Amino acid sequence: MQSTTQSANAERAIIREVGLRDGLQSIARTMPTAQKLQWIEAAYAAGLREIEVGSFVPARLLPQLADTAELVAFAKTLPGLTTSVLVPNLKGAERAMDCGADLMLLPLSASQAHSLANLRKSPDEVVVEIERIVDTRNTSKSNTLIEVGMSTAFGCTIQGRVEPVEVVRLVQAVLEAGVDQVGLADTVGYADPGMVRDLFALTLPVAGARLNCGHFHDTRGLGLANVYAALQAGVTRFDACLAGIGGCPHAPGASGNVATEDLAYMLASMGIATGIDFDALMALRANVAQWLDGEPLHGTLWRAGLPKTLSKQKEIA
Amino acid sequence: MQSTTQSANAERAIIREVGLRDGLQSIARTMPTAQKLQWIEAAYAAGLREIEVGSFVPARLLPQLADTAELVAFAKTLPGLTTSVLVPNLKGAERAMDCGADLMLLPLSASQAHSLANLRKSPDEVVVEIERIVDTRNTSKSNTLIEVGMSTAFGCTIQGRVEPVEVVRLVQAVLEAGVDQVGLADTVGYADPGMVRDLFALTLPVAGARLNCGHFHDTRGLGLANVYAALQAGVTRFDACLAGIGGCPHAPGASGNVATEDLAYMLASMGIATGIDFDALMALRANVAQWLDGEPLHGTLWRAGLPKTLSKQKEIA
Repeated sequence: MQSTTQSANAERAIIREVGLRDGLQSIARTMPTAQKLQWIEAAYAAGLREIEVGSFVPARLLPQLADTAELVAFAKTLPGLTTSVLVPNLKGAERAMDCGADLMLLPLSASQAHSLANLRKSPDEVVVEIERIVDTRNTSKSNTLIEVGMSTAFGCTIQGRVEPVEVVRLVQAVLEAGVDQVGLADTVGYADPGMVRDLFALTLPVAGARLNCGHFHDTRGLGLANVYAALQAGVTRFDACLAGIGGCPHAPGASGNVATEDLAYMLASMGIATGIDFDALMALRANVAQWLDGEPLHGTLWRAGLPKTLSKQKEIA
Repeated sequence: MQSTTQSANAERAIIREVGLRDGLQSIARTMPTAQKLQWIEAAYAAGLREIEVGSFVPARLLPQLADTAELVAFAKTLPGLTTSVLVPNLKGAERAMDCGADLMLLPLSASQAHSLANLRKSPDEVVVEIERIVDTRNTSKSNTLIEVGMSTAFGCTIQGRVEPVEVVRLVQAVLEAGVDQVGLADTVGYADPGMVRDLFALTLPVAGARLNCGHFHDTRGLGLANVYAALQAGVTRFDACLAGIGGCPHAPGASGNVATEDLAYMLASMGIATGIDFDALMALRANVAQWLDGEPLHGTLWRAGLPKTLSKQKEIA
């Protein structure tokens, strides 16, 4: 990925739907497996080609995601779909490889305080665990790709400021460890477009094309502005949650990730292809809203609809 | 205003609070004058130095704004405040000058269809009316500045596409007519950051420093992304409504302008000074929420609060 000198003129971008993982893990109720399967099937039918279906963490910690293996098995039947799962450690990675997930996402927090609170390990100890996971993957000849999600890359609710040089150091460390790709995540909604521009500008020369994901929470309304800044830096792959579900259990009503449908709209409006069919996506959103009745949902497109101009473009195309 | 070659590194920016006009005109109930006066006073105390207090349109059309003259009289007592009013025609302009408003905003729709529906005049007929207003202002030696707000500059719900060359033509026409400044408005929430970048790039060479306002509705969640794109083009003055009030009566729940508090947060986070005191602004937002109890409000900062990092910056500063 070469920098496009702030033109944001990418022809294509990829949206990875992470609502089933990042969204549902923040919601107390457990969505029945049958609904999750419908979600995956409908998201695929709407054109999404990357879906994070769950997480291999102990079921006692996140009972909402206990059916991840079953979801991976189903997702693998859909041609051309990249099935992604989050894994926190080697044990989770072994489960991901056993069930043949296409990609496993390893979170590495750039904040010392967040890393200790979340995984009881320092960032450098997590890097060591990542090295073990890479070794295991390589030895076993598994095809599962390894992506590191650099969480709290733009700041941390516990520690506060996170030094950009620390983010760059950790990105370099995991790339040297042999991971396939890495993304920068604004886990707590602290990023602004200037920070996004600056941190990608600092990290891209080190990481090159292997830095290829932006994960932005919309906690303070800047999610899509941050996506635009990342697009300008040359990033063309983004995480998003349908209906913007998720968020922080300590901030009731706070948004989760950028809403898939709003992100898809922004990209489409800018002429950046994502392969998404809006009618199908909005029908799925309506189903998810019904399944999660009573939970706070976000996003704007479901109310406002597509602009007349965009619908016309679609008819012409 | 020179283009800062997409760096968005402005040191200062101005937020014009337009909630009392663009917000309240879209809400059926009439806010009592006493509350509006409190709003103006508190907004000023929170550091806002431009406020659009109302509109000189016939009271039978917009009874919600019938007390505009009284609000201007009060706003003029606040030192250093630029008091702005919207006027649709010469009659309104005469009232604005009579009461000594600092600035009058003249809407000119770039969409033929929108202009005819809204003012029963073509854009070119509105330009003629603007010429008459400029002549009257100059003859009367009034100090009231004239700003043209180019509405539907990014598209129109009636007509659909609006040609950028038509926007440029009309901007040139009103500048030749002698207006002091001009802004581009996304009246219906059709803009995306790429369109904002392109339209400002096209218009700035014609208008120069007299093009100095961005007015973005957040109908489809792109308001702040659009502000960022305009900042990169060199624009440093933006309209906003506290709590994002307003929107379209035909789209229930659709957002109005970008929320003042969220915009102020984005700018502060980027190190761009606005002079705004967040505690005071959020206290005012809570009052407005009480006054408008039952109306749909927007914005995210009121829920999420400032990031730890920004609060610390504030303590250090």
